[in-house]
Amino acid sequence: MTSSRRGRFITLEGGEGTGKSTQVRRLAAALEARGIATVATREPGGSPGAEEIRRLLVEGEPARWEVMTETLLAYAARADHVARTIGPALVEGKWVVSDRFSDSTFAYQGAGRGMARETIRRIDSAVLDDFKPDLTLVLDLDVAVGLERAMRRPGAQSAKESRFEQFGIDFHERLRKAFLDIAKRHPDRCRVIDAAGTEDDIHAAILAAVAERFGL
Amino acid sequence: MTSSRRGRFITLEGGEGTGKSTQVRRLAAALEARGIATVATREPGGSPGAEEIRRLLVEGEPARWEVMTETLLAYAARADHVARTIGPALVEGKWVVSDRFSDSTFAYQGAGRGMARETIRRIDSAVLDDFKPDLTLVLDLDVAVGLERAMRRPGAQSAKESRFEQFGIDFHERLRKAFLDIAKRHPDRCRVIDAAGTEDDIHAAILAAVAERFGL
Repeated sequence: MTSSRRGRFITLEGGEGTGKSTQVRRLAAALEARGIATVATREPGGSPGAEEIRRLLVEGEPARWEVMTETLLAYAARADHVARTIGPALVEGKWVVSDRFSDSTFAYQGAGRGMARETIRRIDSAVLDDFKPDLTLVLDLDVAVGLERAMRRPGAQSAKESRFEQFGIDFHERLRKAFLDIAKRHPDRCRVIDAAGTEDDIHAAILAAVAERFGL
Repeated sequence: MTSSRRGRFITLEGGEGTGKSTQVRRLAAALEARGIATVATREPGGSPGAEEIRRLLVEGEPARWEVMTETLLAYAARADHVARTIGPALVEGKWVVSDRFSDSTFAYQGAGRGMARETIRRIDSAVLDDFKPDLTLVLDLDVAVGLERAMRRPGAQSAKESRFEQFGIDFHERLRKAFLDIAKRHPDRCRVIDAAGTEDDIHAAILAAVAERFGL
């Protein structure tokens, strides 16, 4: 993945209901329209094995897992996702747009559930070495608005995948702050996108950030 | 878990077909007969969540997981097992006898599948800090004999849980050597038990090692 012809790796981060999955699809379509072969993916998941691990993470009761177990399951899924989806695509020169990546573990399990950032960093470093996104777009939105949007998602799968939505409003306030802190600590890699506007507005802001970052 | 009234944590390690699960049951029964409340458990598994993770690890094709993913799933299961079964039992003063623990990850994913020992050590340290068994009994047996015993195990679950048995004889030779190396590197914690004898012989050797270690 060190070849100069390697593709680019873009992640979208943010809390529940910020519109990440929609924006991942729209960004991938916009890149494809410019002739850039692009893989749209998500975490936890994004490869057959990681999707199996996802079910353990996002379904069931909030107390189902201790935060350490949750962190290790997230990194197990991520290791599979990187080895079998992200890495091979980048090596082929494709671009990869992922709904969530490591920053979500620092936000959800770190700031949200109280795991020490240094412990997550040690696991991240052992698993991923220095593999990081080339660009991370942090979708920022009022927590109450985001949770209401998340609750209104159609489909039975969303209802089943509501484990993290049940953690309470304080948890989600900590998440929002954590994502903004991450953006502040990594200004070269991260751009904050205001997710309060329309889908079209957010898409335009994302495209502008991507164009600026990669000179498209 | 630092109280002086804390229980003792004993692990049995070794390759396939060395008789660990039988010997765990017999050791636990022998301790109970001496009035020591004992929890018999196993890895991967030993708690409801860890047993769910176990199915991902031990079922399916050998190529199902990369070794890094496998290592993280093993530690996710271990974190749950320690937090919800082993830790609480030790705090209550009970003894815990486990069929496998961290040494199996160093043997299977490290020596067996080629993951760097230092990487496993970094993950182990981040997850478990310095939590180690008080005594580890390494059941040592000729690899061909062990695999033949493992293949003859009755029941459909064993047939389903054969993922690691399919890794080939060289893999299992590396495992055997790895467990003996671990015992050599940790002489205070480990005792090698010859597992070629009868069940009764092996049980007697284990009881002698436990009695010697804990002054029973």
